[in-house]
Amino acid sequence: MSQQEAVPAGFDGQSVLGEEDRALVEGVLAHALRPLAKAITLIESSRPDHQRRAEAVLQALLPHTGRALRLGISGVPGVGKSTFIEALGLYLVERGHRVAVLAVDPSSSVSGGSILGDKTRMERLSRDPRAFIRPSPSAGSLGGVAEKTRETMLVCEAAGFDVVIVETVGVGQSETAVANMTDMFVLLQLPNAGDDLQGIKKGIMELADLIVINKADADPAAAMRAKAQLETALHMLRPPHPDWRVPVLLVSALKGEGLDRFWETVLAFRDTMQKNGALAEKRRHQALAWMWERIDAELKRRFRQHPAVRTMLPAIERDVESGRLAPVVAARCLLDASQTISQ
Amino acid sequence: MSQQEAVPAGFDGQSVLGEEDRALVEGVLAHALRPLAKAITLIESSRPDHQRRAEAVLQALLPHTGRALRLGISGVPGVGKSTFIEALGLYLVERGHRVAVLAVDPSSSVSGGSILGDKTRMERLSRDPRAFIRPSPSAGSLGGVAEKTRETMLVCEAAGFDVVIVETVGVGQSETAVANMTDMFVLLQLPNAGDDLQGIKKGIMELADLIVINKADADPAAAMRAKAQLETALHMLRPPHPDWRVPVLLVSALKGEGLDRFWETVLAFRDTMQKNGALAEKRRHQALAWMWERIDAELKRRFRQHPAVRTMLPAIERDVESGRLAPVVAARCLLDASQTISQ
Repeated sequence: MSQQEAVPAGFDGQSVLGEEDRALVEGVLAHALRPLAKAITLIESSRPDHQRRAEAVLQALLPHTGRALRLGISGVPGVGKSTFIEALGLYLVERGHRVAVLAVDPSSSVSGGSILGDKTRMERLSRDPRAFIRPSPSAGSLGGVAEKTRETMLVCEAAGFDVVIVETVGVGQSETAVANMTDMFVLLQLPNAGDDLQGIKKGIMELADLIVINKADADPAAAMRAKAQLETALHMLRPPHPDWRVPVLLVSALKGEGLDRFWETVLAFRDTMQKNGALAEKRRHQALAWMWERIDAELKRRFRQHPAVRTMLPAIERDVESGRLAPVVAARCLLDASQTISQ
Repeated sequence: MSQQEAVPAGFDGQSVLGEEDRALVEGVLAHALRPLAKAITLIESSRPDHQRRAEAVLQALLPHTGRALRLGISGVPGVGKSTFIEALGLYLVERGHRVAVLAVDPSSSVSGGSILGDKTRMERLSRDPRAFIRPSPSAGSLGGVAEKTRETMLVCEAAGFDVVIVETVGVGQSETAVANMTDMFVLLQLPNAGDDLQGIKKGIMELADLIVINKADADPAAAMRAKAQLETALHMLRPPHPDWRVPVLLVSALKGEGLDRFWETVLAFRDTMQKNGALAEKRRHQALAWMWERIDAELKRRFRQHPAVRTMLPAIERDVESGRLAPVVAARCLLDASQTISQ
């Protein structure tokens, strides 16, 4: 391990910005889209020098962040997420908002991006200058993807976007990551939920502040049944906040029906959570949790990359699995080894 | 950080046992209760020299562990856990089993032990020489308590107990810890569940391999209604394993009714999971997860205790919470500081 200064440059905001990055910051603050895209590319880079530069840019932009409404949206494939987000985005830009759409895609590290990989999915919205759509980064772990999305969200806020939508697909752990970086988490459901309630099985429904039954026009009777079922299921779950009862709304994104009601509900949620102080508390908590998540991930990464640990790990794991080595003894061996000086 | 040997003594089972500890190991293997209690006390000690000795003892006992059925039991206060466990314990010892009862108590670090703190709670069972009841350690974090319980479980197995019951109280995160160290997780419920289904709200029901409605004799009609409700709720949850449908059983521990059926179901679960290989796989996974849990906890502890981190942390956390410092920049500052040489 290398020796470093105890308090590196960049702490307390006195970031060392190069000429080029200073121009980037000014461009973002002037709401220009090219510098915004360049700043995000810098953030997404895994090169250590890029990461340092990205952190300085982020720190310089930080005073201009935090004013957007951060909306997480999830739902299983086929629920009509793209149609819903495009309809919502167009609805909002026509009312004077500037809308950024980001994605956390748990499958992107494998498939190279299955959601938002193709901008043509939201063709009208992506052509609108008041909207900004950023596909999911195509590589990296879920944690890594989510983490870059968090920083991208801040940069979008500094670039004047007042609604940031973070989309994810309703499978796996990405929902928790998105719920942990947004103010409000919306779960899209299909009207033919039947008794196979998507979401509740995977613990996703507990994260929802609002549930939307999309494509409600296709079979209104089925949509009403699904609404009743979802309300019963919600009744059994702990609400996200004592001041908020999770509503179930019927929407047809394709026909633009129910968007008024949806947006009113989002604003009502924000107002409630602002008045009782829960939103500010949530964001403080999210910021600290994000810092610790980064630290824990890096501690684990360093540990696993330590030469002595890498050498010993395969045999130790084998012995623990086969019951020849007590887990606590194995942990001690590896921890002791990780404290040897590597070079 | 100190320099250590890469592969310390104790790895590959060549533990350095002192005279006294060798006697302890022999005593435990001879199924003597005094050495068992002394070994557990050693394990529960937080003194570093005791921990090293405990690890050597554990490693020496390891080849004699793993043959018990490990049963986790949880339920909210008032559900009749003590009565149930005592009835089950007496039922089992009368049928030739040796039963150990351990506890993971999330409140014990605050209150000094609220469950199993008082052995008189299970007076008959605690007087039986074929049973061994160990109260929850009265101090330490949840992780710490759970971790000692895991090791205590192994020592009990080496001492010939073939059923180990790990009890916890149905609040907080201790259920996950107990489910992660046992073969089967049983959730006790009250017959008057009403529509306030205990468990499902807290995500505990998802952990259950078996649900027991205790005190079913008090109001049989209510118990049947609760059974139907629980079965509906289970239908919405993902089953713990595709080969196992979670049963809901009616029991009256006080009258000893339903214990036969309960034990048959436990054995049926074990047989199913043994035949399909899921039990062996679960234990391998649990052992590895336990090792990594220990490592992660220790990495975090070392990080937070690093002098430079301790000095910087309060100001950095304040700045992150107030939005003056980007979480990713804060993480970098602290990580850099943690790599300085401390003394």
